[in-house]
Amino acid sequence: MMHKIPVGVLGASGYAGRELCGLVLAHPSLSLAFAAAGARGGERARVAGRDITFANSDAVDLGQAALVFSALPHGASAEYVARARAAGAKVVDLSADLRPGNANPAGAEGVPYGLTEVAREAVRAADVVANPGCYPTATLLALLPLLERKLVAPGGTISVSAASGVTGAGFTPRHDLLFGEVSEDFRAYGAGNVHRHLGEMRATLDAFAAEADLVFTPHLLPVARGILATITVPLVERVENPLALWEERFAREPFVEVTSELPTLKDVVRRNVVRVTAMHAQGTRRPTLVVIAAIDNLVKGAAGQAVQNANLMLGLDETAGLAA
Amino acid sequence: MMHKIPVGVLGASGYAGRELCGLVLAHPSLSLAFAAAGARGGERARVAGRDITFANSDAVDLGQAALVFSALPHGASAEYVARARAAGAKVVDLSADLRPGNANPAGAEGVPYGLTEVAREAVRAADVVANPGCYPTATLLALLPLLERKLVAPGGTISVSAASGVTGAGFTPRHDLLFGEVSEDFRAYGAGNVHRHLGEMRATLDAFAAEADLVFTPHLLPVARGILATITVPLVERVENPLALWEERFAREPFVEVTSELPTLKDVVRRNVVRVTAMHAQGTRRPTLVVIAAIDNLVKGAAGQAVQNANLMLGLDETAGLAA
Amino acid sequence: MMHKIPVGVLGASGYAGRELCGLVLAHPSLSLAFAAAGARGGERARVAGRDITFANSDAVDLGQAALVFSALPHGASAEYVARARAAGAKVVDLSADLRPGNANPAGAEGVPYGLTEVAREAVRAADVVANPGCYPTATLLALLPLLERKLVAPGGTISVSAASGVTGAGFTPRHDLLFGEVSEDFRAYGAGNVHRHLGEMRATLDAFAAEADLVFTPHLLPVARGILATITVPLVERVENPLALWEERFAREPFVEVTSELPTLKDVVRRNVVRVTAMHAQGTRRPTLVVIAAIDNLVKGAAGQAVQNANLMLGLDETAGLAA
Amino acid sequence: MMHKIPVGVLGASGYAGRELCGLVLAHPSLSLAFAAAGARGGERARVAGRDITFANSDAVDLGQAALVFSALPHGASAEYVARARAAGAKVVDLSADLRPGNANPAGAEGVPYGLTEVAREAVRAADVVANPGCYPTATLLALLPLLERKLVAPGGTISVSAASGVTGAGFTPRHDLLFGEVSEDFRAYGAGNVHRHLGEMRATLDAFAAEADLVFTPHLLPVARGILATITVPLVERVENPLALWEERFAREPFVEVTSELPTLKDVVRRNVVRVTAMHAQGTRRPTLVVIAAIDNLVKGAAGQAVQNANLMLGLDETAGLAA
Repeated sequence: MMHKIPVGVLGASGYAGRELCGLVLAHPSLSLAFAAAGARGGERARVAGRDITFANSDAVDLGQAALVFSALPHGASAEYVARARAAGAKVVDLSADLRPGNANPAGAEGVPYGLTEVAREAVRAADVVANPGCYPTATLLALLPLLERKLVAPGGTISVSAASGVTGAGFTPRHDLLFGEVSEDFRAYGAGNVHRHLGEMRATLDAFAAEADLVFTPHLLPVARGILATITVPLVERVENPLALWEERFAREPFVEVTSELPTLKDVVRRNVVRVTAMHAQGTRRPTLVVIAAIDNLVKGAAGQAVQNANLMLGLDETAGLAA
Repeated sequence: MMHKIPVGVLGASGYAGRELCGLVLAHPSLSLAFAAAGARGGERARVAGRDITFANSDAVDLGQAALVFSALPHGASAEYVARARAAGAKVVDLSADLRPGNANPAGAEGVPYGLTEVAREAVRAADVVANPGCYPTATLLALLPLLERKLVAPGGTISVSAASGVTGAGFTPRHDLLFGEVSEDFRAYGAGNVHRHLGEMRATLDAFAAEADLVFTPHLLPVARGILATITVPLVERVENPLALWEERFAREPFVEVTSELPTLKDVVRRNVVRVTAMHAQGTRRPTLVVIAAIDNLVKGAAGQAVQNANLMLGLDETAGLAA
Repeated sequence: MMHKIPVGVLGASGYAGRELCGLVLAHPSLSLAFAAAGARGGERARVAGRDITFANSDAVDLGQAALVFSALPHGASAEYVARARAAGAKVVDLSADLRPGNANPAGAEGVPYGLTEVAREAVRAADVVANPGCYPTATLLALLPLLERKLVAPGGTISVSAASGVTGAGFTPRHDLLFGEVSEDFRAYGAGNVHRHLGEMRATLDAFAAEADLVFTPHLLPVARGILATITVPLVERVENPLALWEERFAREPFVEVTSELPTLKDVVRRNVVRVTAMHAQGTRRPTLVVIAAIDNLVKGAAGQAVQNANLMLGLDETAGLAA
Repeated sequence: MMHKIPVGVLGASGYAGRELCGLVLAHPSLSLAFAAAGARGGERARVAGRDITFANSDAVDLGQAALVFSALPHGASAEYVARARAAGAKVVDLSADLRPGNANPAGAEGVPYGLTEVAREAVRAADVVANPGCYPTATLLALLPLLERKLVAPGGTISVSAASGVTGAGFTPRHDLLFGEVSEDFRAYGAGNVHRHLGEMRATLDAFAAEADLVFTPHLLPVARGILATITVPLVERVENPLALWEERFAREPFVEVTSELPTLKDVVRRNVVRVTAMHAQGTRRPTLVVIAAIDNLVKGAAGQAVQNANLMLGLDETAGLAA
């Protein structure tokens, strides 16, 4: 049997952590050295049809892993990233701690922002990668062709209305996440540009010198998984065939599906893909695109993209264990 | 016992039609003269805890009703509106047939567009009223204070991302409305400004001479009822306390709730209200508001507003049978 | 304006407590003297379209209410029942504390088990009533005609498979009640006859000298509200027209709907009714009935039945505030 | 690259048919020769992240497949089974047409009833197999240890209360399967022992000479996938450790999970397993077991079991393409 590379998961009891464990268990070249959880250390859980037992985050030997995924909460993760590095492991950090636009505008020094399709080579060379947030993954990949070609109208407003399944809010019990509250409901949250993910989205827009306003309104959907981002973007000038921009940019990307249909959550759940379409808004004075992107918040928006980055950092095929 | 005014319902077997029957049955001053359904004439249905039997649309004597609600499909309704008028009944038409922006830009002549909070006096005097669509009701009431005060930036883009429960798509069986397809999914439809409701929204913007682009993207939610509209609006100038505009405008409106909280579907289902908030988007170059409104698509977005209009047309208290 | 009788609610922040507040606020003859909640005292909540503020359970003057509803947790309620009695208030206790089959086989002395359709006169005369559990309400009303007529086969097994919406599990945040866990799932719990409600169901069977085994398996449904109980009952002898037994027994009951259709949750949610049908199981050696009953666990299974009992205790019409 | 065996799917546009296509496309030793659909021939569909185009059922060359899966409707399937046989293909028929208890008590001659764990060797030798129904698969595998050991009390009543996700009702649009009708609802159907699946369940009970009554009540769950069967069984005699009977019987079965936990739909969806537990009902006069089993109705209850049978018929490893 082939040798497998041992990797570990911190924060394994949350939704993203369990998704990571499942992906590692099914990965052809990775083995699960540990699945650590703070308060739930010692507990058993079913992951992908298997029973696993959580280790204690503070007791586990981080150095037994060649790479550690940290799915710890924001604020708590950076310390464990440092510990894992000190123990000799590479790290993919799924928290916001090292991303740009948070602690400092550019992100932690020497830590690439792991939007793989943008930063592939930096990720390959890195010891630590800051895995993007779920909303930024959908939004930024959707905007990428426009940003790279400087097609966003300066002074215009990019309006992002995005909706996420409840697993995006984590596994910690809260009144407002009970089935009896979420079912048959739909609501915005963090409206008025106060959501934590604004920072990393603006940092990327700035990196492309897009001088547009960004208005981002997330919503809570009565579904378990998935993000749909619906984006209106005013253009510098009318583009004849807008979808061709996406088709061309992503032609060789294994995890981006460009489509003339409207993407839905069903198309993407449990898959490491972003599915995107774009079209003109009819009947407007100023040329304006509607861009719609769907991802699974736990896969392409978290654990899947983390494995995609880890594959690069470990010298494996980028698509290993991530059948699209 | 008090005399009740007989009213009839055409298209009673659909979701809006059944909601109308329920409201009429519970109304203190109205009685249900008939509930007619085309293909399902003769069938029984449970409405609001009662068994009713649908009459045949073509066999029913329209003149027995002082007012007829038509919840017939778009395209089929106008003919029955004419028949009901010929039989001497007033009419509230819930279809798009007589609304502005459809057959002709201004709507059918002499038929007010029954957004009650805008057209109250015209409705009171009318024999026929075109009841607004569900999305336009939420969107236009949300925008009303800005439109009336000319605060929308000329040349800017009003971006409306709205999501509706499946009853908005009607009761006709379709693959894409099956529980197995809708559950755990979320999708846009009519994207790119091709939804039927664009016409009546633009007509109202034009009536207020708002020279802004409108981009409207509706979505299908895995819930039975409710619409949430999330709107970004660039302003002519910064407004100190935006919510005060709504509080002032709607202070005496019985069916508009202005709130500093984010409205949710749960707040409004089974109630004839629009619930709305507004706030600045932080960190933008151009002053921009986020306005969020919630309604029940079948009540304030259809049957409830229809009864509100009918109350006015019949000289009853506007709120009769519509406890907020 | 008519004088209203002041009543209070303890445990007002839970699902049953909030339902009680809503019913009291809409009741023609009751007023809400207080809505008290322990840990959430001082918090605001929206109930039935109104904002209410919870009082502190220990600070509230129980004597200002003519009757107190206790929706406190099992174990914590009995003490407050005593306090309310000492303050001069009548009490409807929604907890299990005073029901038969719990602390003692017969229930608390002098406290009728308030299954209204069985104990109407005792309830009318009582100062304290033990409001039945949600599952027992559905199950026992469904079985009542068979129990009263001694039609259950001695030595046979009454098999009750019942499923409840999540509000039956309360408002306390728990991992297993999160939307992400409940959605698209279905599971039994308390299987093997270990559910708390067994006691009061067996006590009632014993009261009717039914010498049959009872096997009760509850399930958690991915819905907010409603209980459906599906019951198989072996009979002493074949009955010609089983449904007639229910029709006859409940002919004058305002809150029992006997139907030849299969009851569904949709038929009963937000209504104070039990809806029931019965039929023979075809092709069996021993005559066996299938009896199916549906209730709203928060209304007929909790707050509605509590108001029904309170109406009797306060000399009001039994149906006041409970439009079926 | 390894040679793959061509197989075809009839009735590919329904839920079971699409599930079959997905399993075949991911199978290491099978290739999809055709996916035929009657009315939807020529249409495209997304299956397991791929776009496939349906062939026309009547135009397709059945002989190009070594084995044909028929997921055609009951009544329509038998004819195509005969055609496929005439063309030289083996057949797994997912319809009820050839199962025992339907056309004739014993089923079609020479066609084993493919409950794989019972009929493995007969399936291996067969050219045509009648794939069991979804409810019977869950129910009969749950009862198997009791049936084989003659532990069911003669004259007793096996009460089966089972609930299925909506995909069990098929992909044909019906009012009662719309999201707006199913969401927040739960209902029994086919109550009183009139469900089509009674025949094949009774035929299997008869084959084991179990002289017990069977009462089977199916229910429609507001979930897409999964069946949970809750069964009460009176025993001939008390059994010390009931779960050991299942553990022993299924110790070497790759697709049966025996557990001391209560199985849930989440444990089994998208997996080819039945998950089962058993325990005594406490406090009964007669020893009575509660047995609970969960399956995915589309996998172990249809397409997965069909592939399991096909693997045997084609000389492949029984578990190929069916990672538990």
